[in-house]
Amino acid sequence: MNGRRHPVWKRSFLSLEKDLLSWLHENLPASGRHSVGLGDDAAVLGGFDRSGVVVTTDMLTEGVDFLLEEVDPRRVGHKALGVNLSDLAAMAAEPVAVFVSLVLPRQAVGGRAALELAIELYRGMIPLAEKLGVEIAGGDTNSWDGPLAISITALGKTSEQGPLTRGGGRAGDQLLVTGELGGSILGRHLDVQPRVREALLLHEQFELHAGIDISDGLALDVSRLAEASGVGAVLVPGEIPIAAAAKRLGQRDGRSAVDHALGDGEDFELVLAVPPEEAARLLRQQPTEVSITRIGELLESPGLWQEKANGERLPLVAQGYEHWGDE
Amino acid sequence: MNGRRHPVWKRSFLSLEKDLLSWLHENLPASGRHSVGLGDDAAVLGGFDRSGVVVTTDMLTEGVDFLLEEVDPRRVGHKALGVNLSDLAAMAAEPVAVFVSLVLPRQAVGGRAALELAIELYRGMIPLAEKLGVEIAGGDTNSWDGPLAISITALGKTSEQGPLTRGGGRAGDQLLVTGELGGSILGRHLDVQPRVREALLLHEQFELHAGIDISDGLALDVSRLAEASGVGAVLVPGEIPIAAAAKRLGQRDGRSAVDHALGDGEDFELVLAVPPEEAARLLRQQPTEVSITRIGELLESPGLWQEKANGERLPLVAQGYEHWGDE
Repeated sequence: MNGRRHPVWKRSFLSLEKDLLSWLHENLPASGRHSVGLGDDAAVLGGFDRSGVVVTTDMLTEGVDFLLEEVDPRRVGHKALGVNLSDLAAMAAEPVAVFVSLVLPRQAVGGRAALELAIELYRGMIPLAEKLGVEIAGGDTNSWDGPLAISITALGKTSEQGPLTRGGGRAGDQLLVTGELGGSILGRHLDVQPRVREALLLHEQFELHAGIDISDGLALDVSRLAEASGVGAVLVPGEIPIAAAAKRLGQRDGRSAVDHALGDGEDFELVLAVPPEEAARLLRQQPTEVSITRIGELLESPGLWQEKANGERLPLVAQGYEHWGDE
Repeated sequence: MNGRRHPVWKRSFLSLEKDLLSWLHENLPASGRHSVGLGDDAAVLGGFDRSGVVVTTDMLTEGVDFLLEEVDPRRVGHKALGVNLSDLAAMAAEPVAVFVSLVLPRQAVGGRAALELAIELYRGMIPLAEKLGVEIAGGDTNSWDGPLAISITALGKTSEQGPLTRGGGRAGDQLLVTGELGGSILGRHLDVQPRVREALLLHEQFELHAGIDISDGLALDVSRLAEASGVGAVLVPGEIPIAAAAKRLGQRDGRSAVDHALGDGEDFELVLAVPPEEAARLLRQQPTEVSITRIGELLESPGLWQEKANGERLPLVAQGYEHWGDE
């Protein structure tokens, strides 16, 4: 996904999607007339006068992303909206409107008929939409003899600084991350707090070179940012902010909390590549409610590395997860 | 859906959706900050400088909108894209980009594994996208143990004349329709030819007051246009252009071909409300490849009427269909 004209497709570890993307790259007309394709978290569309329109779409499905028998549908609705807004945050785009397409099971699930289920999903979305000033502006509602699927398309607009992309990082840039990582499967993955305000504030007040949100795992998403920027990256595991859930999960499964922070994904925090002096200023000021931590830097030499406490650098394998419940 | 600030939701005959819309209208925050909500075929979003961004979304699902065992998936892909572009045409918006979310059955359907099915769906979309200069700019691909669902969101931009809405009709406007109507279930509903070029050309060269595309049936969609415009409408059944398929279907089921043209839906033709002198000029010039026919006019008095050959006016019941295969 390095071509400048390629459209933006959600990445996935499913070989299905990989194979489909290969086919699409060969077979889609390379119009490039409108889209500044970035291989990024969202597509930036030209052709709308001065402001770029940033668009992203993400679908959540029952049995793959959640189990209705186990989870409050309000949390599912919140997550479905949150993951889309997190993609806009990764582009430092201001959310404007979202469109919600539902296909609801005709048979009651978890004791809820279709209408009640739909309302609960929206009850999960509305507070987040209100908080971030985004309009739920339309959608399509269907029912069928199948499981629940929620497809959301989110539209935002770029700020005066333009979109923040994955591809602008330079060797020497410091890698900063918002919040704490790891163990999101214990529940935090449902309670996504998309870093929209943080992204807009940081993009306005600091010189940011590149950004990405952590959906598939810190190591993997950092390697994507580095690759899109044509550089390498080193992470300092000892400096990664570890979520309490990563420790709890580690106690259960015997893996280290750092491993969980590096690989679990669905943290929906931001990783930013920031030139050194700006990074120092940003870390000193801590201008957002959520804390921001330095976790590594971009390198001339390609590949992904980890820096041990003694300063030694070893290769780091960028393991991400396959989506919950998927093969 | 008459409120000026209401967002745009796909209409449906499912009581599920009606009930959900009622709930949404009461519970969605009335931000109205961005959306020029029109209760229309698509939402017009402000907040993007001068050009309006027009957005529509439509989901097709297996067992409701099509049966993969019976239909070539290329035609399904074509239709999924076509119905969305038809909504943009109804607003006289120029299509810019579409985003395609798929959830594919893991088990082969009609002898096709998930990847092959996805490729066939895209093979159906690509020629239509190329023909109308719209970019397939992104999407999301998933698989699961459920049936196929295709959710497409289409973005367009308004022309210099602004969006064409349902609500601008005035008493005395002539009602014109593109193409021929009825019997689409015999196959034409899959081969949607969205009237995008026609809408743009007509909107540029003629004074159009209002427009809608025929998705749920001529009578019903005309009644929606009239209601949104705060007027009534009379149709002249004897002047409605009847598709050959409507006659074939009538021979099978004993209903008249005109009844099929009035009620079948999924014609995806345009109905336009045009002031009388402009309408006369338009009908004389026939500026589009598809022929345009006068089928009635808008009235001061509310309601939907039909005009018999002897000039008598009787009430017309606006019957539309429930989507194929649905209850």
